[in-house]
Amino acid sequence: MSRGWKSPAPFDWQAHVHRALAEDIVTGDLSAAVLEGKTFHWYIEAEAEGVACGLGIAYELLISSIPGANGELASEDGDAVSPGKTVISGSGPAEHLLSRERVALNYIIHLSGIATVTSRYAEAIADLPCEVVDTRKTLPGLRALQKYAVRCGGGRNHRMGLYDGIMLKDNHIQAYGSITKAVEKARSLATHMMMIEVECTNESMVDEAVEAGADIVMLDNMSPDRMSEIVAKHQGRTKFEASGGITLDTIRAAAESGVDAVSVGALTHSAPGLSFHMEMK
Amino acid sequence: MSRGWKSPAPFDWQAHVHRALAEDIVTGDLSAAVLEGKTFHWYIEAEAEGVACGLGIAYELLISSIPGANGELASEDGDAVSPGKTVISGSGPAEHLLSRERVALNYIIHLSGIATVTSRYAEAIADLPCEVVDTRKTLPGLRALQKYAVRCGGGRNHRMGLYDGIMLKDNHIQAYGSITKAVEKARSLATHMMMIEVECTNESMVDEAVEAGADIVMLDNMSPDRMSEIVAKHQGRTKFEASGGITLDTIRAAAESGVDAVSVGALTHSAPGLSFHMEMK
Amino acid sequence: MSRGWKSPAPFDWQAHVHRALAEDIVTGDLSAAVLEGKTFHWYIEAEAEGVACGLGIAYELLISSIPGANGELASEDGDAVSPGKTVISGSGPAEHLLSRERVALNYIIHLSGIATVTSRYAEAIADLPCEVVDTRKTLPGLRALQKYAVRCGGGRNHRMGLYDGIMLKDNHIQAYGSITKAVEKARSLATHMMMIEVECTNESMVDEAVEAGADIVMLDNMSPDRMSEIVAKHQGRTKFEASGGITLDTIRAAAESGVDAVSVGALTHSAPGLSFHMEMK
Amino acid sequence: MSRGWKSPAPFDWQAHVHRALAEDIVTGDLSAAVLEGKTFHWYIEAEAEGVACGLGIAYELLISSIPGANGELASEDGDAVSPGKTVISGSGPAEHLLSRERVALNYIIHLSGIATVTSRYAEAIADLPCEVVDTRKTLPGLRALQKYAVRCGGGRNHRMGLYDGIMLKDNHIQAYGSITKAVEKARSLATHMMMIEVECTNESMVDEAVEAGADIVMLDNMSPDRMSEIVAKHQGRTKFEASGGITLDTIRAAAESGVDAVSVGALTHSAPGLSFHMEMK
Amino acid sequence: MSRGWKSPAPFDWQAHVHRALAEDIVTGDLSAAVLEGKTFHWYIEAEAEGVACGLGIAYELLISSIPGANGELASEDGDAVSPGKTVISGSGPAEHLLSRERVALNYIIHLSGIATVTSRYAEAIADLPCEVVDTRKTLPGLRALQKYAVRCGGGRNHRMGLYDGIMLKDNHIQAYGSITKAVEKARSLATHMMMIEVECTNESMVDEAVEAGADIVMLDNMSPDRMSEIVAKHQGRTKFEASGGITLDTIRAAAESGVDAVSVGALTHSAPGLSFHMEMK
Amino acid sequence: MSRGWKSPAPFDWQAHVHRALAEDIVTGDLSAAVLEGKTFHWYIEAEAEGVACGLGIAYELLISSIPGANGELASEDGDAVSPGKTVISGSGPAEHLLSRERVALNYIIHLSGIATVTSRYAEAIADLPCEVVDTRKTLPGLRALQKYAVRCGGGRNHRMGLYDGIMLKDNHIQAYGSITKAVEKARSLATHMMMIEVECTNESMVDEAVEAGADIVMLDNMSPDRMSEIVAKHQGRTKFEASGGITLDTIRAAAESGVDAVSVGALTHSAPGLSFHMEMK
Repeated sequence: MSRGWKSPAPFDWQAHVHRALAEDIVTGDLSAAVLEGKTFHWYIEAEAEGVACGLGIAYELLISSIPGANGELASEDGDAVSPGKTVISGSGPAEHLLSRERVALNYIIHLSGIATVTSRYAEAIADLPCEVVDTRKTLPGLRALQKYAVRCGGGRNHRMGLYDGIMLKDNHIQAYGSITKAVEKARSLATHMMMIEVECTNESMVDEAVEAGADIVMLDNMSPDRMSEIVAKHQGRTKFEASGGITLDTIRAAAESGVDAVSVGALTHSAPGLSFHMEMK
Repeated sequence: MSRGWKSPAPFDWQAHVHRALAEDIVTGDLSAAVLEGKTFHWYIEAEAEGVACGLGIAYELLISSIPGANGELASEDGDAVSPGKTVISGSGPAEHLLSRERVALNYIIHLSGIATVTSRYAEAIADLPCEVVDTRKTLPGLRALQKYAVRCGGGRNHRMGLYDGIMLKDNHIQAYGSITKAVEKARSLATHMMMIEVECTNESMVDEAVEAGADIVMLDNMSPDRMSEIVAKHQGRTKFEASGGITLDTIRAAAESGVDAVSVGALTHSAPGLSFHMEMK
Repeated sequence: MSRGWKSPAPFDWQAHVHRALAEDIVTGDLSAAVLEGKTFHWYIEAEAEGVACGLGIAYELLISSIPGANGELASEDGDAVSPGKTVISGSGPAEHLLSRERVALNYIIHLSGIATVTSRYAEAIADLPCEVVDTRKTLPGLRALQKYAVRCGGGRNHRMGLYDGIMLKDNHIQAYGSITKAVEKARSLATHMMMIEVECTNESMVDEAVEAGADIVMLDNMSPDRMSEIVAKHQGRTKFEASGGITLDTIRAAAESGVDAVSVGALTHSAPGLSFHMEMK
Repeated sequence: MSRGWKSPAPFDWQAHVHRALAEDIVTGDLSAAVLEGKTFHWYIEAEAEGVACGLGIAYELLISSIPGANGELASEDGDAVSPGKTVISGSGPAEHLLSRERVALNYIIHLSGIATVTSRYAEAIADLPCEVVDTRKTLPGLRALQKYAVRCGGGRNHRMGLYDGIMLKDNHIQAYGSITKAVEKARSLATHMMMIEVECTNESMVDEAVEAGADIVMLDNMSPDRMSEIVAKHQGRTKFEASGGITLDTIRAAAESGVDAVSVGALTHSAPGLSFHMEMK
Repeated sequence: MSRGWKSPAPFDWQAHVHRALAEDIVTGDLSAAVLEGKTFHWYIEAEAEGVACGLGIAYELLISSIPGANGELASEDGDAVSPGKTVISGSGPAEHLLSRERVALNYIIHLSGIATVTSRYAEAIADLPCEVVDTRKTLPGLRALQKYAVRCGGGRNHRMGLYDGIMLKDNHIQAYGSITKAVEKARSLATHMMMIEVECTNESMVDEAVEAGADIVMLDNMSPDRMSEIVAKHQGRTKFEASGGITLDTIRAAAESGVDAVSVGALTHSAPGLSFHMEMK
Repeated sequence: MSRGWKSPAPFDWQAHVHRALAEDIVTGDLSAAVLEGKTFHWYIEAEAEGVACGLGIAYELLISSIPGANGELASEDGDAVSPGKTVISGSGPAEHLLSRERVALNYIIHLSGIATVTSRYAEAIADLPCEVVDTRKTLPGLRALQKYAVRCGGGRNHRMGLYDGIMLKDNHIQAYGSITKAVEKARSLATHMMMIEVECTNESMVDEAVEAGADIVMLDNMSPDRMSEIVAKHQGRTKFEASGGITLDTIRAAAESGVDAVSVGALTHSAPGLSFHMEMK
């Protein structure tokens, strides 16, 4: 059930893959029907430098769920790859392989793209006590898989959705009149294990958030210097997260400010695919 | 049911949106619960130049499906936008708006990204008798919506999946011994309204494909000059599609070769998001 | 996954079978529970002359999905059968066999009925360059399976639904003022691989449709003579389809007019079942 | 929620209709998109004598679920119709009407076909204390709707599936050694409100079944005379059902034997459609 | 598919278990991921006296659906257990066992609680010709499983829902003016195998219901003496069911009145769990 | 969408209610069909002292989703009720009301039972700085609704499932050799906003857990005195939760030990229903 995956896999990934096949095949793959009865040997190889992800899905699609197919993984999700690296190979009925080739590659290319981008951010600050975290800026329907890819790339997941963490922004604060009151209200709603984070755009907001007992304070669009001062002032009283337009060029400076985490929306909303192709004969 | 959409909308988009909300909310949005009972005015505005897409989804999410909410579209899917352009605005219960803001933006940003990239390719050859078409290199679960976004950007859809067109590639041809035999087999399986396309990497393949009656011939990774010669030779006997690593820089040359269509995988597998944000008060 | 099927099978047939079992069993089969622990040998045999279809479903229902069951197919979908012909047989737990017998037979009887009716139409014109095609007049929820049965009976599928072909009828033409304008609009919406068909009830409509570049022209309720003239006049410029109340008695005359296809709604909306029964001991 | 239906409607018919639309539309109806923005007036009329069924579905599909549409029912499910009778009419957006016309007609034609056939059987014995009942020989996925159509045609439903009645056949009896033992076992499994029926092929079986307390005895493939004797002998001790190849020609004789019900599989497995068409302008 | 179950199992229990896992795991079990790659031996044992139920689900969850796991059942659904009794044991991947432990126990504890309570009621009247039956007072979504547990505990199922039996209460009778008219109307709607029950609160209602041909008469909140008189008066003409606030203390007196069944809502709406725990190492 | 609910409602409660209706109605409610066309006035009233929950569901089932129905809430989820208190009332089509009465009551009775039990625990320690929290010992399929009921009763939710908090138990600790190592591993897997809890059965475990940086320490089955000592020793360095067989009789002593929370499995796995009934006329 989990060959090729880095634990934990999202719970219901098989339903996702089923829908992806469904949207591609619908009433039947006439092109593949041409090849009924033939057997193919195949392998998938990387065309670029990066981190592989989606191999557990490929293993399921191309090997375990096709009667009469076999094969093996040469890499697992989270492994580094470079051009020419074979990540999975096997043999089986040509008809089924051709019907699933594109879907398998679509997963690998997209998820490896995310893992690869994440790994670049993570490497840039690998020697600092700071982590790259993702956001809720994910593509609709792909949340759990994209966040899995971030983990494979060496990033940490921020909250998974609206249900497993409370984030107080401008709107909440204005509605309650103060950070203190908004945190108090949030605390009364939070579960036993849930943290509360407050988004702050200036120092006085940070002061109030720390005082109000926020578990995490987000420093929104602040310069590294400003963040350094803030972190130093409140050392050890809360966790800090830097956020807002941070790129590969700016992440190191942000991390050196002493924040615990840097969040990057581009990991999931705009990661270009990492190229892979499948050879069959 | 279809305010803001450019006809036709994919059939089951509401189920897609429901799943996207479900993956974000799960057991409930505690952050938004903080705001129970308050009313907000809001608008969504573009932060960049491009083509809007996903506004029909936003209309449903933020206006028609929230009791007590109202608002209106200032743009429709397929309209051009520039920084500061408000595309939709309204007012309603703060709690529901906050629970849906991120999901609505995730759709708009991703689909507008695709529409925008497509429009750049389309504009580059707007004066030529040639069209930009997409591929099956879409993100899993997003096929119908991404292909809709391509249409909004001025592109044409290639086949939607394996079920509505037959594409014969190397593997099919090798398995049958010749293009002629593969086309013959495919013709026996095709539906009454289905075209057959053959992927060719050299001139003799093209000659055989045209002779075999292929409805469309794909010229795979050929230079513009080579394509010009081929198109000239077989003028009017079939449709030609250029494919393989074509970029914004190279599309014009490809189109000038006389092909009927140029297919570009990057429209859907690697389009960066187009930025939009939502203001509330 | 596909024993007994003629490729390609519709994608999601297992979900269809699951729903069919669900509607029959719901809270549990008390009649079968009576037989818990017993083993039965069984076979399914035809009671009439025709073409078998649904055997892949029977194989799944009665053999592969019941732990401890085994058996084998003596025919495959699309094979001819006559009274007394055993098409599939096996042995397994009585309780499960009895719970699934009726559902398996319901599929075989219905789908074989369609395949058989189709084969009669196909045989009537087997020596002519013309094919029997189906329509969208299918029973709700059974579209993909019924169209599969048509293929097993030697027919060709027309479009599978509204999504894989454009058909312009009276309403479209009136709304646009002319066939020419309707075809032009349709061409702008069609996918790269999609054909456009125009329904015509007289010669001048046909003339305009051919001129407008329709890929297929439907000759609606015309006499064989009238169709012969039309086909002769436009030879080779488009494909022709005869349609409208064509029966086993009239199909040959229609086909001899030179049309490429004859469409018959009765293949799917009114095909009587072909009798089969299951013996157990 | 239930305009046009004869109570009770099957619970989840809306999901059925949604799937039927989905299988027809998938990625979008390009033909209908041609008509975006136009309004049509329409009506559906019968082309033959019979009993209407499926009008509740048509009302939902063509009127209540299309924003901006309106219309009204001129008949309800179960009403008699004759050629030229308008059963429902309205007006609305052309695009949506065309996308749903075929699906609405497919339901009406099929369900009215069943209601009509049922009504012919029911009328043949209308003056006798005997009823026409259906069987489990229904088309997969259409069980609840087909059984609803039988009720609309004046028939009674036999058990709806394996879950709401126990039927003991040859296999059960052989497995237990005797009818008496099989009934005893079945009684121990039956729910508080569930009847037990025993299928009998000769008089001694009937005697034993009556003695064993069967609530209903099925007389399988017996002549009317034989059935008359049996009914007379056991008068009032149980209910009798005649079954096996009964047609419109033979039902009256069967019913005159004194049985309480006659079951007819052809009501649902082979009923030809009743013709209706939709006019739009 | 059915190890550990007492036949018949509800049809779609696997979908129920899938939803139960889904609601617990969602994006992934991080606690269990800690244990990736380790193997555990485990057993589940009872902590109290009662009747086991849910072991078929545990077998599926902990053994058959985990690749590389094995184990065996020491009890089956419906077996008596006492403190320290091991009911199922095995070994397998620690990660998967921990992710499923709680869900498996939640089923066993709840269903065994129902089976146990039911068995206490059943034992109290085991020597009388009367049975304990359940009601429709079940927990939403758990109907089929709770009614299965009642059967495992030695109770009989009343109707499963609104679809497999007609129950006429005050409201129906008032609406029709008399029991006689309500029964007549109900008889016209009932299926061929369906019984009709009338809820009566006094003797004259019972008289009318028996006369009207009710198959079952419910004696609502009557004293044992009153019920004895009624049963004696109508001996053999119908079945009687005692209902209304009957407890373990009062069931014997109720049953001794001669009724055929006593219905108890508390079997399903308020049964406390029966304790079990799982040990792993 | 949310009349009667206490914010936030679980996301997909409407699907839950749909399934609950489906399991009760299936092919149709023949009893209610008897009443077609009649109108009833109705109200639901409490029969006992407690806290109401499920009224939002009742509002949807009996008022907003029935065309032609109306009514109003007299209480909201979380309100106290006593015998005779009407919580919701209205009028509408008798047929639909009767088909939904039982399902609506089943939700109210069960959820109010949980809210009521929770409120008793919460009141017992209302003056102490300690809270009642639930567990994952919920009934399968009812997790989100049961946890919602706990909130309505004044309790706090512990983690919602395996995905939103890490709990390290004996098995994890043994597998890693020490609490320190298990916490370290867990920290590497946790999301940015996730707390880690360690289950401890003695003081040295607590010491190590606190040292290792556990966010919450569970004191498993310890006496109040022992817990007081532990809390005093580690004051302010972590949160403490008392767990293990705590009842209404013992919760106050446990809370007085200074722990932050007391978890009680019986809130959800064994709460008896709170009685309500519906009157109609």
